[in-house]
Formats: sequence, structure tokens, C-alpha cells
Amino acid sequence: MKLQDVKYDSLDEIAEGIRSMEIRGAGKIGRYASLGLSFLARDYRGKSREDFVKELKEGAKKLLSTRPSAISLKNSILLTLKGVEEGENVDEMREILLKRSGEFVRRSHEAVEKIAVMGMRRIPRGSKVLTHCNSNAALTLIERAFENGRVDEVYFTEYRPRRQGHITARRLAAGSIPVTMIVDSAVRYFIRDMDVVVVGADTVAANGAVINKIGTSQIALAAHEGRTPFIVASETLKFSRETLLGSLVEIEERDEGEVADPLKPSDFPGVNFRNPVFDATPPEYIDAIVTEVGVVSPYLATEVIRDMFGISGPVSTEGKKDETNWL
Amino acid sequence: MKLQDVKYDSLDEIAEGIRSMEIRGAGKIGRYASLGLSFLARDYRGKSREDFVKELKEGAKKLLSTRPSAISLKNSILLTLKGVEEGENVDEMREILLKRSGEFVRRSHEAVEKIAVMGMRRIPRGSKVLTHCNSNAALTLIERAFENGRVDEVYFTEYRPRRQGHITARRLAAGSIPVTMIVDSAVRYFIRDMDVVVVGADTVAANGAVINKIGTSQIALAAHEGRTPFIVASETLKFSRETLLGSLVEIEERDEGEVADPLKPSDFPGVNFRNPVFDATPPEYIDAIVTEVGVVSPYLATEVIRDMFGISGPVSTEGKKDETNWL
Amino acid sequence: MKLQDVKYDSLDEIAEGIRSMEIRGAGKIGRYASLGLSFLARDYRGKSREDFVKELKEGAKKLLSTRPSAISLKNSILLTLKGVEEGENVDEMREILLKRSGEFVRRSHEAVEKIAVMGMRRIPRGSKVLTHCNSNAALTLIERAFENGRVDEVYFTEYRPRRQGHITARRLAAGSIPVTMIVDSAVRYFIRDMDVVVVGADTVAANGAVINKIGTSQIALAAHEGRTPFIVASETLKFSRETLLGSLVEIEERDEGEVADPLKPSDFPGVNFRNPVFDATPPEYIDAIVTEVGVVSPYLATEVIRDMFGISGPVSTEGKKDETNWL
Amino acid sequence: MKLQDVKYDSLDEIAEGIRSMEIRGAGKIGRYASLGLSFLARDYRGKSREDFVKELKEGAKKLLSTRPSAISLKNSILLTLKGVEEGENVDEMREILLKRSGEFVRRSHEAVEKIAVMGMRRIPRGSKVLTHCNSNAALTLIERAFENGRVDEVYFTEYRPRRQGHITARRLAAGSIPVTMIVDSAVRYFIRDMDVVVVGADTVAANGAVINKIGTSQIALAAHEGRTPFIVASETLKFSRETLLGSLVEIEERDEGEVADPLKPSDFPGVNFRNPVFDATPPEYIDAIVTEVGVVSPYLATEVIRDMFGISGPVSTEGKKDETNWL
Amino acid sequence: MKLQDVKYDSLDEIAEGIRSMEIRGAGKIGRYASLGLSFLARDYRGKSREDFVKELKEGAKKLLSTRPSAISLKNSILLTLKGVEEGENVDEMREILLKRSGEFVRRSHEAVEKIAVMGMRRIPRGSKVLTHCNSNAALTLIERAFENGRVDEVYFTEYRPRRQGHITARRLAAGSIPVTMIVDSAVRYFIRDMDVVVVGADTVAANGAVINKIGTSQIALAAHEGRTPFIVASETLKFSRETLLGSLVEIEERDEGEVADPLKPSDFPGVNFRNPVFDATPPEYIDAIVTEVGVVSPYLATEVIRDMFGISGPVSTEGKKDETNWL
Amino acid sequence: MKLQDVKYDSLDEIAEGIRSMEIRGAGKIGRYASLGLSFLARDYRGKSREDFVKELKEGAKKLLSTRPSAISLKNSILLTLKGVEEGENVDEMREILLKRSGEFVRRSHEAVEKIAVMGMRRIPRGSKVLTHCNSNAALTLIERAFENGRVDEVYFTEYRPRRQGHITARRLAAGSIPVTMIVDSAVRYFIRDMDVVVVGADTVAANGAVINKIGTSQIALAAHEGRTPFIVASETLKFSRETLLGSLVEIEERDEGEVADPLKPSDFPGVNFRNPVFDATPPEYIDAIVTEVGVVSPYLATEVIRDMFGISGPVSTEGKKDETNWL
Repeated sequence: MKLQDVKYDSLDEIAEGIRSMEIRGAGKIGRYASLGLSFLARDYRGKSREDFVKELKEGAKKLLSTRPSAISLKNSILLTLKGVEEGENVDEMREILLKRSGEFVRRSHEAVEKIAVMGMRRIPRGSKVLTHCNSNAALTLIERAFENGRVDEVYFTEYRPRRQGHITARRLAAGSIPVTMIVDSAVRYFIRDMDVVVVGADTVAANGAVINKIGTSQIALAAHEGRTPFIVASETLKFSRETLLGSLVEIEERDEGEVADPLKPSDFPGVNFRNPVFDATPPEYIDAIVTEVGVVSPYLATEVIRDMFGISGPVSTEGKKDETNWL
Repeated sequence: MKLQDVKYDSLDEIAEGIRSMEIRGAGKIGRYASLGLSFLARDYRGKSREDFVKELKEGAKKLLSTRPSAISLKNSILLTLKGVEEGENVDEMREILLKRSGEFVRRSHEAVEKIAVMGMRRIPRGSKVLTHCNSNAALTLIERAFENGRVDEVYFTEYRPRRQGHITARRLAAGSIPVTMIVDSAVRYFIRDMDVVVVGADTVAANGAVINKIGTSQIALAAHEGRTPFIVASETLKFSRETLLGSLVEIEERDEGEVADPLKPSDFPGVNFRNPVFDATPPEYIDAIVTEVGVVSPYLATEVIRDMFGISGPVSTEGKKDETNWL
Repeated sequence: MKLQDVKYDSLDEIAEGIRSMEIRGAGKIGRYASLGLSFLARDYRGKSREDFVKELKEGAKKLLSTRPSAISLKNSILLTLKGVEEGENVDEMREILLKRSGEFVRRSHEAVEKIAVMGMRRIPRGSKVLTHCNSNAALTLIERAFENGRVDEVYFTEYRPRRQGHITARRLAAGSIPVTMIVDSAVRYFIRDMDVVVVGADTVAANGAVINKIGTSQIALAAHEGRTPFIVASETLKFSRETLLGSLVEIEERDEGEVADPLKPSDFPGVNFRNPVFDATPPEYIDAIVTEVGVVSPYLATEVIRDMFGISGPVSTEGKKDETNWL
Repeated sequence: MKLQDVKYDSLDEIAEGIRSMEIRGAGKIGRYASLGLSFLARDYRGKSREDFVKELKEGAKKLLSTRPSAISLKNSILLTLKGVEEGENVDEMREILLKRSGEFVRRSHEAVEKIAVMGMRRIPRGSKVLTHCNSNAALTLIERAFENGRVDEVYFTEYRPRRQGHITARRLAAGSIPVTMIVDSAVRYFIRDMDVVVVGADTVAANGAVINKIGTSQIALAAHEGRTPFIVASETLKFSRETLLGSLVEIEERDEGEVADPLKPSDFPGVNFRNPVFDATPPEYIDAIVTEVGVVSPYLATEVIRDMFGISGPVSTEGKKDETNWL
Repeated sequence: MKLQDVKYDSLDEIAEGIRSMEIRGAGKIGRYASLGLSFLARDYRGKSREDFVKELKEGAKKLLSTRPSAISLKNSILLTLKGVEEGENVDEMREILLKRSGEFVRRSHEAVEKIAVMGMRRIPRGSKVLTHCNSNAALTLIERAFENGRVDEVYFTEYRPRRQGHITARRLAAGSIPVTMIVDSAVRYFIRDMDVVVVGADTVAANGAVINKIGTSQIALAAHEGRTPFIVASETLKFSRETLLGSLVEIEERDEGEVADPLKPSDFPGVNFRNPVFDATPPEYIDAIVTEVGVVSPYLATEVIRDMFGISGPVSTEGKKDETNWL
Repeated sequence: MKLQDVKYDSLDEIAEGIRSMEIRGAGKIGRYASLGLSFLARDYRGKSREDFVKELKEGAKKLLSTRPSAISLKNSILLTLKGVEEGENVDEMREILLKRSGEFVRRSHEAVEKIAVMGMRRIPRGSKVLTHCNSNAALTLIERAFENGRVDEVYFTEYRPRRQGHITARRLAAGSIPVTMIVDSAVRYFIRDMDVVVVGADTVAANGAVINKIGTSQIALAAHEGRTPFIVASETLKFSRETLLGSLVEIEERDEGEVADPLKPSDFPGVNFRNPVFDATPPEYIDAIVTEVGVVSPYLATEVIRDMFGISGPVSTEGKKDETNWL
């Protein structure tokens, strides 16, 4: 992401871009949010440390308000502002922030490709791979593995209710990868023929549970039952600091119309609909999480989080001890 | 089924009714097939034992050819003709056949209601029940349980690809039962809130495996993981004698268009589709099979089959020893 | 049980003996109930078949009312009266009943000893055995095994809330068997040192689940986890025909004072107590059930029930088809 | 087995043939033992029922003494003599015995082929099959499956200590079946590539456990872990009536020299050797047992035994009640 | 803990307070022990570094001798003295010790409340919670969750042999929390109705096993079987450094009179009693350990220990390399 | 290892020693390789930093080429050269290298003894221990445990195809330890009598899987099934950095002659042989890995690797970011 290529020029423009979903995808949201804070710091003209902090906090809050439940957004803000309070004056603080932001953006940018290269190595030559929904990290990994002769064929689910398997279908077929679509219910029927399952993550919790698109945990269970390795591809940006402090990841439920589709809920008088978007896969069903910091056991999620945020020893229950409360 | 209420009057008409799917549903097909053989016997005018046997064999083959993979059809024919060869002359044979047919029809007719009443007793007061696809035996059981205050709420799956959950929705809602539709992928998410799972069966194999609509085995696995009882409602008509002789139940794959729906396969150039209709649930995930001969462990499927067909001791690998080879 | 040794001389006296708990223990209750019906038949002076049936039904109901949930009582009545309706007149009926009763009493009488001898063979020489609560069949089995040099040491639980381990302690110690008492919570701690677990049964259900004293299922789970064989000693008198027809065994809850003991519930203001007497052990945790008809897999419970009551083919949902509805 | 083709002409000659191991293999031993009793009956010249019984008992004991632990020998004798005591005089008894023996021999003779045909059907087209040791029933099944295009490749173990895999190697290679030998330790490494495991049985116990050559239970465990179906091919002749009465199958330990081989125990001063010949595979790891009475769940072993010996109701702890105590 | 509020004024007084059990509870013992060393340092008048070390070692040993198996006591001493040897002279050493002690006391003091706040977040709104024995950390967590509307009802065990459930009963009832007492054996009966289990820890081992009051591992097993989350609340003070060096935690056995209670061992002639106080719950049954350093997977116990003691790289088998051997 | 005791005096001599297998065993190879680099540095006479780096790289490659798949060789080179590039000139670089090498050699030298002492503590007094193949770390641990009265008896496998159990036999018998040899297939038969299993490791992967001699994973599975603790003794030298970057450990297959032995492959016309040397034991079957950095959960393998190589944050997919690419 070269700055000159960016069409936004202020935190406000970027916040609007996120809100309008012009900017989307976990990685992209994270990188642009970091950039937004850079713009704010770059343009700040005052000399007051306190005022600068106030402006940054307001900017951070504005960004977060655009997608409050997006973990990459929150992580991006926290990591970009981490340590800024150590600057003695506005100039030092700006310098720290720009440096942190630069590092953050570069790291995020390289993350998916690193994950793809490392994860690809886990796939034995000539494998059949199953994937679910439409994760960029998982699909990039599969594409790299295909290019390197490791993947022979990819099975993927339709993914009800949103049918994102349709997008997966087009992306993989465009790469000339032999692909086969199945309904979500057919996973256990085919799982013993699969050599490995690769999925993405929405959020990784401190105890190693992976929150991902609905149905993922069912697939993981079936894979575990039949000794098919189950691999998660996830940038560390998806690892949740809040879960280290005990929070459970809340599972959003979307519009019931999605479940009724292609009919409408009103076509079913007297019928309710439940439409949870995610579910939680427990760590015992996950063989490895591939991140840009390496291939790790899910049980090490806490260490990844500590390392990323520089946390050690007792924590404040609202965040790291002595940390400026940016959010 | 009173004979005067039946609109068909010959085996040929009934064969046509089955072929055209005017007659459908495992129980109905079985009962009408038996009736068809009764008509044939009733109308037979000859005196030759051999000729009668020949006619019956031809009739049996004609019936079977209408739906060769329907297990209830095959079982119906075999059970109706069982023992007919013991008649010394055509009259005795006719009498045996009509008696067998009458018994068969009555037993089949009462079976679902018996299953409903016995199965209902397995459901604790105030339960939440999950069901899958659209099985008459399972739904009747659930309705009886609701009428008796045992069921508070029913969850059911959309059931892709055929969306037979839509039919289930309408049937249960018509009975004023509080019902909730979920996508197939959401089963593991909700399973711990369910008190019991009730599904039907397409075929029950001799080793206790239940072949049922695709996705059933995945639900059974999730239920087993979380100690939710998993119950199968199935007339003994679905128990397969062939599996006692080693045959694996073949899993049919249907039109790939169903998986692509509501789009078309041609909308996905370069993409394959697999559409298995059934899967096999192993006996260790099934708590009980409710049949008209009682609530049995799946491991007793062999005994149910032996009892139904009167088999004991060594079998001929093509059927019971000394049995007239009707099919 | 020789008739001259019996101190009761009428069904009414026996009913009173059961109600007052003078007659107790599953086997004893069953045998005396059968005897009660014999007395009634012996003393009946009428000639009317219908009237005799009426009297028998009344007698049966009177007996059952003394302990309505005692499965051996119900089984005893049903087995004693089974087939009586086939007698053409009162004399024939009386003869049938007396014969059935005689058989029943003899079988019940010999059952525990047979169980002990066969079960003993399942215990390897020099074993440590764990038992729970105070089951006569289980303890007789253990005593036989000790006498034959197969048991070195017996561990048993205190069994809260009723502390029936104290009775077990005295019985085993009286036989000079080296015994060790532990609290119920300590089972998993010691289970890997045990060579086999032997318990009794209160009721055996058609799907192979064993309903027994509270805590049994927890012990079975711990034994299963550590590959310690888990054996149930149970007369077939404990097998429940109702469960074949779908009924769940109801778990009684007793007085909350037992949980509070040696204090009183009133010593704990604001505290509730729950005191279930039994729990259900699923068949997958049971290696074998030792009965007087042999050592069987729990999955064969249905066959034991069918065999005992002579049931085959479709059942009436209220009992065997065409059977006089004695209860 | 036509009588004129048999080179023996008396029970004594046959007993000698078994003892000298000229006659070997479970099936062969069983059939010749039955024949031996036929010879004895054929040649008996007396008229006294009691004397005939005495002669038969002596003959039975003589036969059994040649290989006391061979279950097929014991079963053969019991099944041949079953019901002989119902004959009113020597002629009737002889007739019964000859009829029973004829049936027994025919059934045993056809059993392996029936098992092969039925078991073959359980093997999906194009399978890789793993086998262990050198079981005739298992290998015949595999050969039939290969001839029918169901087996692509067979893996088998070396089978230490006796290296019977070497015999298996030669038999399968002679049939032009693609075969691969591995060491016993490599089973788990290859198991996920196998589509099915097929082994034989030495003894089948009443609770469904299969006692077979050492290492079998380890393979079953690995197969179960990875959802590879595990099938046992076994004539009912291997099912043990004693285990229904509680007996544990004793596991013989052979010469320690076999473990030290190709060195000698004396080459290892201070080292002990243990050489158990069999181990017990629990029923939960066995998908099906293929017998000549059909493909059954291991949990139905008791029913197979009852059926074969005509046992129902309470058993005498030393054998079926009222049965002449032939052995 | 303000110093002026403390009634002790020397290490000796504190040692006596611990020995007499006036000071008890893991946290309190740890904090007072640290304070005792502070008093000793504060009062030391000498100038000799060596002599000071000697005095400190003696003080440390005196403290430890009061409760040699109390892990919080040992950890407290080690953490208070850690790094003291780096002081160049007595004054520097004293300063280090007082600073370490202050940190230690503050951390310990805040730990339980932090655990309660973070752990509370793991409990879904409207939960039923089960607890065992009487752990302050677990109960504080449950109280916080109740105050925040997350807990509807608490079940707890009587906890034989010491009946500490009685203390739990009174504490929770005092807080107006709806509570229900059950016997230890009834846990599996109720576990599927529970939404979460919360217990404390006596010691946490390096491989993630939690040593806690007898019966805990049995509850964890039952919770795992039924997918009920199992959470341990434990200050890091309970994590054992020795286990990182291989030591197994020894399980103490207490007075056999406790098992016989309310009778006496002498009431049971010929009966032995075993009374282990703790058992070990393996990490695979623990979903999370809530500590003041965050919510961690049990598999991270080693990292918690390393972090707390500043250990990295190879260890001396008697303690950290180069560390003054304080104990 | 005192330098004067070493018979080699240059990297080339050492490389030759490794290639010819004069130098063997993971630890020895590692230490000599490090020494080889020390010799090279000691003898380097130039002044050019670049030239020195070039020489070191060539030396490193030469060493690695002698046994490219030996993980201890690669780790030794990487750890010896780690940080050398931070030297500003040749002298500083040499100093760094010699210091690193010294540390490396000492750590490696002490590792096995530390492992033995710590691992020994995990073995309860009076244990029966099972081991497999012939691992120095595992056997030293067992010997220390025997000397300390913790081990009563050792069972070990023959270990086909190489029969390294024969070497184990002699080593343990020489130490007067009561030992018993069994065939590989007999492990599950004896496992419940064993108190603990101790094996070595060839390679430890980042996700906690242990690659060790063929058959190890089968033993681990059987131990897990029966709750027998399974412990791996392994220097950190065996932990693979490549696996952190996604690489799967390749499993070598050796000469097919070993499987045919004591016959020859040519004795088996038409028979193939597969001879994998290692298999992978998943972390869920491993209770603890004993290393010189302590007793750790297998799930912490990543942390051990990071700690050893000083890795934190994002990794380059070809090695640690900014690291001189020595190999």
C-alpha cells in the first residue's frame, strides 16, 4: 500500500469508507484504520501533548464506531497507538505513531502471503482439500499449494445461508483448479476422502477456540472424527485481546430472511427463524493455526496475543496495566 | 385401507400408480404393492400351481421394476409371497397369499401410529426437539409428543438441496407447534439446547447403521458429542434383508442442478457438483430405533430382520435357504 | 422357598407384608407376589371363568399398589399370569397359573447364585474389585469370586446419602474379605488400580441402559475412561418390558433431609436440596450384564425381554398384542 | 467331504490324526471330529441305550483330549451329539446322530465360501485392504473380492513372532493380487490409506469380543481411530458357548524362543520374554462379523450362540439345563 | 493490607500465626509470609552481605517449616527473595526485597478480584453453575457473575468427607443466590442442565493438570463428556515451579476417621479406609484457567510459571540456573 | 567434552567423521558440528568480514551435507552461528562464535542428564515402565529412575525391522534392571499393567507432534486408550524450526530388505515392501515432553523453538527476519 496510491486523505474519509463498506475485509479495514490515525497525526498542528492525546482518542473512537465488532479494526487502532504515550512531546509522539503505523501496515500487508507459503507446506503432494465459506487467507493458501503441485482437487461447501461458496467457486475455477461444490450437509459423507481441511477465522480466542462462519465447528468435528487434519489460516490481527480478559466472543444473528431465502419469512406463517453467523470451534479439533508469526498450536493463542500486545504479568481487567486507555 | 376405498383394481394399475409417483411414501408403496399381488391372486383363474407361481413371479418383477431401489417395495413383495409355495394347490396358495397380504397391510398401516406412541414416551416433558428433512414417522412422533405436552418447541433444518424443511415447516406450523427453521450448518451451534433429536430412516442395515437423508450422520455426530439423545423412527419395512447378506446400501447421487440451485450448473463454468442423497449414521451414534416391534437398540437390527423374515441358521448367500426365489 | 416355611397364607397377607416392607428386596418381593397369586388361585371356589379373571385382576392390582414402581413386582405378576387366559375353564386356568408360579419362583430363587457363579468367572485371579451401594447380586458374585481365590481386595463407596456402604462393609468384612471404604468422590482416583467394577441394577431398559443407585453412571464413565471392565449383576426380573414400548424409567427423588444429613434442611436457610435416587448408565460403558440366562451384552436387553415375555413381531403399544390386559 | 474320499475309518484314527496335526485348521478339525462320532455310531453293535451313551461320551472325551483348547473341536462334538439323547433306542439315536453330523459337516463345509461371498459385498470397488496374520476365512474373502474387482491392493503385516505374513504373502501373490508387506509397527502409519481391514477370529466371545492373533486389537484400535471399517470373518464354529456362562477366554503364552528369534533367549542373559499368542478386540472396534448365518454386529454374538445351540431362558451354569452332559 | 492494620510485627510472630492456622487460605499465607521477610529485612541491623543472606535463608526456612506442602507459602518466599542477591550491599538488598515484597503483596491482594471479574465474563447470561468444595476464587467469581445477572442458580456438592459444601451453602445463601445442594454422586445426573462448572485449584502443574479437592477430576470428566465448559479459578500463586522440574504433586491422605464419619473406624472391624484429599484433573478436561494474568489454556501453565519466575532456557534440575538457593 | 580429548582438529575431519558414522547419535553429531565451526573460526587468518562469512557458510554447508536430514546437525549449526553477524570485525565475530559454540556444547552435554533427573521424578515409586526402540535419553531416564527405586521392571519391544530392542535388552540387563522383551504387536496386551511409557524423539514439530521410530504412535494411542501416561524424553536439539514455518517432517523409507529379513525380498516374488522408519505421534497422546528446559506440554513446542532461536513476531517464511541466511 503505497501512500500515493491511496485515494483517501484523512481519518474522516477513511472512517466513511469503512462505514460505507467501500473498505472491507479484515486486513484492509485494519490497514486503512492505521493509515487514518497516521493522517490525523501528520496533520495535527498543535503543541499540547494533552490535546494531541484527546484528538487521537476521538479519532480512534470515530474509527471504531464504524464497525464496532470488527476485531481487526480494534486491534489496528490499539497496535498503532501502542507506546505513543511514551513520547515526551507531540513531535516524539507523532514519530512513534508513524513508525508503529508503518510497521503495522507492512506486517498486515505481508501476512496473508506468508500464511499462504507456510500453510502450503502443510499440504502433502497430491492432496484433496476441503474449504468452507470464502476466506481470503484460506483460499490464497490453497492457490499457492495448487501452484506448487500439492493440491489436486478442492471441495467446497455451498455455504448457506449466504451462498458464499458461489464466490469461492468462481475464484478457484478462475485459477483452473479442479473444484467441486457440495451442500453443507454432505461434509461428513466426503470427509474421509479429503486429505486436509483449510478454513479461515473471524476471531481467535485466548483459549484457542476459533470463531468462524457458521458450520465450521461441525466440519472440524467431522474432520477430527476421521483423522483428517484441520488447519486454520489466520492473520494475528484476528486474535482477540478481550478474550484474554475473559470476554466471550458474541455470536451475531443476522436477518431471518436469509434462512427463508429464496422464499420469504412471510411465506411461512407461524414459523420462527434463527440465523447465527458464526460458531466456535474448540481447540482440540484444530491441528494448527497458520499465522504470519508461524504455524502454531491453537493452545498458544494466548502467547500470540501477549507477544503482539507486549503483555506480561498481571493484567488490568480493563486492559494492560499502565496502558493509556485509548479506547 | 378398505378395499372398497381403493381406486385401483389390478396389479398393473397399481404398478403404474407407483411408477407415476401417484402412490408414494415408503408405507404406501409397500401396502399397495401387497394389494397388487392380492388382486392378481384374486383374479387368477387357472388350476396349475406352476403357472400360478410363474404369474406371481412376473407380477412381483413388474412391481419391483417401478422403483427398484425402494426397500419397502421389495420387502412388501417378499413378505406377501412368503410361504405361498407351501400351498398344495392354487386355492391354498391364494388363501395363504391373501392372509399374508392382509396381515402385511394391517401391520404397515398401524406401524407409524405405534411408533409415534412409543417414541413419544422417550421424550421428556417440556423438551426441545430437533428434526431433519421431512420424515412422516418422525413428524408423527413429534406431533403426538406435542399433543401430550412433552414437546415445547421444534427446531428443524432447511435441508439443502431439496429444502424439504419447507414442507416440515408447514406441517408443524399447521399443528400450532412452535417451530424454528435453521440452516443445516447451524446444527452444532444449537445442539446443546436440544433435549432430543428425532429423524426418520430410509434404510436400516443389518449392522445397525441407518441410511437416511444427507446430513443425518453429521447431526448424529454432533448430538453424540454433546450427549443429546438421537432417536430414529422407522417402520421395520425399512430394514434391509440384503445387508444381512453383506450388501452395502448404495448411495444414489442426484442431479447436480440441485446443488447449484437457485442458479444453474452452467452459471459455474469449470465447477463440478456432487449431490449424494443419503449418508450412513453408524449405530454408536443412535440411542434407539423406534419401530412397531418396540424400541430397540440399533445393534439389534439383525434380529429384527431375522424375525420379520423368519430367518435362522446359515443363510444362502442369495436369500434364505429353501425359499422360493420370488425375486 | 418351601410352602410350609412361608408364614403368609393369602394374597392379602402378602400384600400387607410387601407394603410394610417386611418383605423386601427385588427377588423376594417378586417371589412372594407370585405366591400370593397362587394362594388366590388355590382358594378360588367359583366356576365362572370371567369371575376368576376378575378376581385375579383385582388381586394383581392390589399387589401392584403396594410398591407401584418396583419392577420385580410388576414382572412377577405379569409372568405368573401369562397364558392363564388360555385355560378353557377355571381348573385349567388354575393349573396353568400354579405351574407358571412354580417356575417363576424356582427361576428367581436360583438366579442370584447362577449370576454369582457365571460372573465370578469374569474376574481374573488376584483381582481388586470396586463396588457401589449394596447390591445382593453384586456382593454374592464378589463373595463367590473371593472364595475361589479370584478376588484379593474389595473397594467400595460410602454411598451418600444413605451410606449403604456401611452395610456392604459389614457384610464383606464378615466374610473376612479385605475391604476398603472410600468416599464416592474418590472413585476416579483409585479406578486405575481396580481390575473390575461390579454393581447391581435397579432396572434394565430395552436399549441396554442400566438404572441403578445414584453415582453408578459416574463410576461407569470413570471405568470406561481407564479401560477398567464394568460388569452389572442383575436378575432378568429387573428388565423392564415397558421400556420396550418406549417408556423412560422415571427417576424418583427422595427426601431432601437425606442430603442435609447429619444436619437438617432447616439448618440451611435459603438452600434447596435435590436428591435423585438413581441414574442411568448408558450401554456403551457396560462390558457385560450377568443374568441367570447368561452373560450378555447390554445391547441385547431387548432380546432378554422378548424371550422372557415371549414377545415377537409388532407390539401393541399398551402391551403384547392379544394379551389379556392383566394390569 | 465325501465319505469315500476320507482316509480314516474310525474315531480312533481321526483322534490320532488331530493329535498328530495331520488334521488341522479350525474347520477341518471340527468336521473330522463329527465324522469320528459318526463312525463310532455306525459301528456300534449293541442294543443298550445306556451303553451307547457311555461309548459316545468316551469317544467325545477322547476326541477333545487331542486339542483341549480348540473351540471348533468342542463345538463340533456338542453340535453332533445335541439331541441324540432324545432317541428312544439305539437305532433312533444313531439316526439322529448321523443326521446331525451330516448337517454339521455340510454347514461347516459351506461356511467359508458363504462368508467370502457375503463379506466381499462389504468391500467397496477399488479398495485397499489390510489383513493381519494368516486367516483362511479372511483371505478367501479377500480373494473373492479381488476376483470381483473390488480389491485393488492388499497390505499385510509380517506378523511377529511367527512371521505368518510370509505364508499370506505367498498365497496372495500366487493369486496375482498386488500385495505389500509391512512390519506390525507400521499399521497406524498406513491405516488412513486403507479402505477396510479384514481379519479372522480364533474365538468369538458372548459379549462380542473377538480373540484373535496377537496385535489384532491394536490394529482394530488404530482403524477405529481413523474411521477405517474393521471386519472379522469367522465361522460360527468359533463362537464360544462357555463365554455365555461367564468364562474368560484364556490367552495362551508360547515359547519365549519365538520372541528372541532369530537369536536365542540364552543370547540375552538377564532378559525375560513374554509371548502371548492372542489378544481380545472389544466389540466397539468391530464394525461387523461375517459368518455363514449372515453379517452381524459383534454385539449379537450371544444370539448366534443361543441360536446355534438352541439355548433359551435360564442356563445351568455348567451348560444348558436338562442337556445330557456329553463333555 | 495496610501495614498499620497488621497485628504481627516480626517474622517469628507470622510463622507462629501460620503454624497455628490463625493465618490461613492460600493467598493470606502467601502475603503474610512475604511480609514476614520484610519485617526481617527492615529490622536487620548488620552490614555483612553474607550474614544477611544467612539470616534470610533461616527466616525462609522457618516460614516454610510451618506448612511445608503449602505451595503459596513456597512461591511467596521464592518470589519475595528473587533478585535480592543482586544487591551489592545490605541496603541495596533490603531495598530490592521490600520492593519485591510490596509488589508480591499487591499482586496477590488484587488477584482474586481480577479473577472474579474476568471469569465472570465467561459465564453466559442466565446460567446455571455447578461448583465443588469451597474455593474462595471460584465463589467470588460466581458472586460477581450473580451480581451482574449472569448466574440464575448455583448447584454445589456436599463434598464428602469434610462437608465443605455446608460452608459454601451458607456463603452463597447469604448472598441471596438461589442455591441447591446435591451429593457428590449426583453430579453426572445434573451436569447436562448446567451451563458451566467453576472450581478452584490447590496446585497447577506445569503440564496443565490441576490438583484440586477430591472429586474434581470426576466432575471434569462428566462435564467433558457432556460438553459443559469447565473453568478453574486460580491465582498464579498456585502454579508449581517444582513440576516444571519434573516433580509430581504428592497427594496427601488424611485421617481415616473422616471417611467413617459420622461413625468411627472402630465401628467397622476388619474394614480399611483410604482418604486422599486431592486428585489431578488432566488438562484436556479444562476449558480455561482464570488467573490474574488472564484467561489461559491449561496447556500454558509452563509459560505462566516461566513468566512468574523469570525462567528461560535450560534449567538447573534443582532450580533456576545461577539462582541463590534460598530454600 | 574437553578439547584436548578430541581426536579431530578441523571442520573437514569432523565432517568426515559424521559422514562415516564414526560420530553418531543426535547429541554427539550436534556437539562435534559446533566444534567444527569453532576450529574453522580459530584457524581463520583473514581480516575480511565478508570473506569470513563466506568461509563459515561453506563450512556450514559442508557439515550439513554429511547428514542433511539430521535435525540436531542443522540446529547445531544455526545455534552456533546465531548472532555472529553482529560482530563488527573478524575478531569480534570469532569471539561471538566461540562463545556460542561453548554454550551450545555445554548445554547439549548436560541435557541428557538433566532430562534423566527431571523425568525420573515423573515416575511413581515401584513402577513398571514400557519403552520402544533404543533412545539414549529415554534409557538414561529409566536407569536413573531404577537407581532411585522408582522402577521395578521394564518392558520393551523387539522393535522390528531393525531389532534395536536387542541393544536395549543388553544395556538394561547390564544395569541389572529386571527386563522383559515383547514383540511390537503385544503392546496393547500389556499396556494396562504398565505405569508409564517412556520413549525418545527423533524430531519434535512446532504443533507438538513427535516424530519417532515407527510404532511409537501406535503405542501412544494404546497408552492413551488405557490412561497410561506417555512421556517423551528429548533434548531441545530435536525441536524443528522448519516446522514453525510450516514444513512437514518427511518420513524416510528404508531398504525393503529389512522387512523381508531374515529372508530376502527375492524370496517373495510378486510382493512389495514398505519400510517407513518413523511415524508421527499427535500431541493429544503425549502427557509431557521432558527437555533440559523443563517438563513441558507438547503444545508448547512452538515456545521452546522460539525461545531457543530467539524468534518473536512475524517470521520470514525462509527463516527469522533479518537473520543472516547461514544455510
